[in-house]
Amino acid sequence: MGTGKIVLALDGMGGDHAPDVIVNGADIARERYPGTSFLLFGDPARLKPLVDKRKGLSQALEIVPAEDAVLAEDKPSFALRRRRKSSMWLAVEAAAQGRADTVVSAGNTGALLAISMFAMRTVAGAHRPALASFVPTSRGETVMLDLGANLECDADNLAEFAVMGSVFAQVLLGLDRPKVGLLNVGSEEEKGHEELRQAARWLRRPEAPVNFHGFVEGNDIGRGTVDVVVTDGFTGNVALKSIEGTAKLYTQFVRDAFRTSTFAKIGFLFAAGALVKMRKRVDPRRYNGGVFLGLDGVCVKSHGGTDALGFAYAVGVAVDLVRYEYKNKLAEGLTKLREVTSVAEASPEALQAGGGAE
Amino acid sequence: MGTGKIVLALDGMGGDHAPDVIVNGADIARERYPGTSFLLFGDPARLKPLVDKRKGLSQALEIVPAEDAVLAEDKPSFALRRRRKSSMWLAVEAAAQGRADTVVSAGNTGALLAISMFAMRTVAGAHRPALASFVPTSRGETVMLDLGANLECDADNLAEFAVMGSVFAQVLLGLDRPKVGLLNVGSEEEKGHEELRQAARWLRRPEAPVNFHGFVEGNDIGRGTVDVVVTDGFTGNVALKSIEGTAKLYTQFVRDAFRTSTFAKIGFLFAAGALVKMRKRVDPRRYNGGVFLGLDGVCVKSHGGTDALGFAYAVGVAVDLVRYEYKNKLAEGLTKLREVTSVAEASPEALQAGGGAE
Repeated sequence: MGTGKIVLALDGMGGDHAPDVIVNGADIARERYPGTSFLLFGDPARLKPLVDKRKGLSQALEIVPAEDAVLAEDKPSFALRRRRKSSMWLAVEAAAQGRADTVVSAGNTGALLAISMFAMRTVAGAHRPALASFVPTSRGETVMLDLGANLECDADNLAEFAVMGSVFAQVLLGLDRPKVGLLNVGSEEEKGHEELRQAARWLRRPEAPVNFHGFVEGNDIGRGTVDVVVTDGFTGNVALKSIEGTAKLYTQFVRDAFRTSTFAKIGFLFAAGALVKMRKRVDPRRYNGGVFLGLDGVCVKSHGGTDALGFAYAVGVAVDLVRYEYKNKLAEGLTKLREVTSVAEASPEALQAGGGAE
Repeated sequence: MGTGKIVLALDGMGGDHAPDVIVNGADIARERYPGTSFLLFGDPARLKPLVDKRKGLSQALEIVPAEDAVLAEDKPSFALRRRRKSSMWLAVEAAAQGRADTVVSAGNTGALLAISMFAMRTVAGAHRPALASFVPTSRGETVMLDLGANLECDADNLAEFAVMGSVFAQVLLGLDRPKVGLLNVGSEEEKGHEELRQAARWLRRPEAPVNFHGFVEGNDIGRGTVDVVVTDGFTGNVALKSIEGTAKLYTQFVRDAFRTSTFAKIGFLFAAGALVKMRKRVDPRRYNGGVFLGLDGVCVKSHGGTDALGFAYAVGVAVDLVRYEYKNKLAEGLTKLREVTSVAEASPEALQAGGGAE
């Protein structure tokens, strides 16, 4: 661990501010994570001048020409079939074929999912990949998934997401036995859709490879009740964006509050430092590393609108996933899960008894 | 309008702090909304001393004995069948039978829904009732529904909720043509479940009785993009609680920020007034009036943990719904909706052409 050199494939043309933030982000990441090197995919005519401006970057980075780029408005299916020569496709392919350990892109999310699904396939034991990210909580941060890769999920999907999120939290947050919760409309066992209840029955079993807390509700996310919040992609996407929207709203409310009177303005002068610190605590750039979990490879999605610091953070997530062997640990967890769910399918009564005996 | 006397049935024993906050809330509401009177259901031995303490309240209020009460832990089906003599049941019945114009309870939400569904039935044209409430936004407040009455919704349900929410916003927010949005994972027409897309096709038709904005995302809630956010009860419940959790988290972050240094503490002294004002702006008691829309009657749910001010606010919502004839306006809207959805069912092609022509 940490001794081998890590090679990252970067989509040089993906994101609102590409290629500038990609190159600058790579430069920040290079200093922050020694022993990493980069394959930067994109248009050399645009990339080379930017790389040359950053002293020493060219020693850790190789530009790989890509004549096309995935556009923000491309449909996933179009990008998958018709952008075969794009910087995104070639970068994903490099990671899928082992020329790089991982790939990072700030480009079109749907396209990245489609291409990485196609090129990497899911890891053994996972039916579908899920998009995961961190959200700030009063105790630090919580992993939430799925954030939109799968609008509808069955019990298998949800149970697998629980394992993916648990291993992710182990690796990224350094937790031994992260607490995992299933997002629902109440914490009682009989609440919610049947898919949720079935997933909970599996996860509650003592042999299940996660530390299952049970059902959690929307307000448990910010409270940090669990380390991993598992939900379907529709609910997760809405919840995450609702949280982001509320965070923005409150930032505005605080700003407005300091403008209401002369007293408040004076107060602001004294408190400015503390408020900047608070803003840092909830800085969305820190929550920038969306990751597709469940692939037979490591693919990290950076926000499209990120700056160089945010992109470097996403690179850091990718580095950690490789360095701490996320993929192997996930495969182990999914194998254990399969033992639980296959028993369940053979004999639901035995399962229920197991769940009730806890 | 506003000239007729309004009679409110109150569940005197429902909520965490009943009967105290119910009686005190009624007293505040009586002063705030002249011309209202109350039927207060519950245990006279507990209610009478509280009412007598409030000078003048007994002139506007009649205590109606109820020997039982719905408990917070009662299952809805149990409360419906076995709490027939409870303060909640009798209060709902009074409103259903016309002895009161409306009913307000801070008790068990599921029980209140089950009992009011049974006693009032849904209004003509509505398949299911929905729980609606206000959420704070940067432009003021937005109506959101369903917040948990229906975990799964079809296109009919969603289209009906759109009409219910629209009429509610007209009556409560005084808007002529409230903008209505359907919560989804993207704003493009092809996004989301088929039920959402079907509901959108209906609502997009020029004859539809709502001012349909289209799909909105989670972050549009806080932004105030629309006046009414429509979603299924599972997603709505999670989104609302996620918003509440984030609001709490930020309040804590702001508080923490002011404790980090002496400078910040001095800043707090100057800014305290402004911050109190900010807190008022997002005071959950102002967003206390959850309402079951779509019933053939008016039933308002107050938060279980509310104080007297919050309960008085919920009473105010009930008063406005009666005074501005919510029920009649809703019936009109649903009739118009039925014309749109029945055409759609007969000829989906015609509908699509209509939707596309907009």
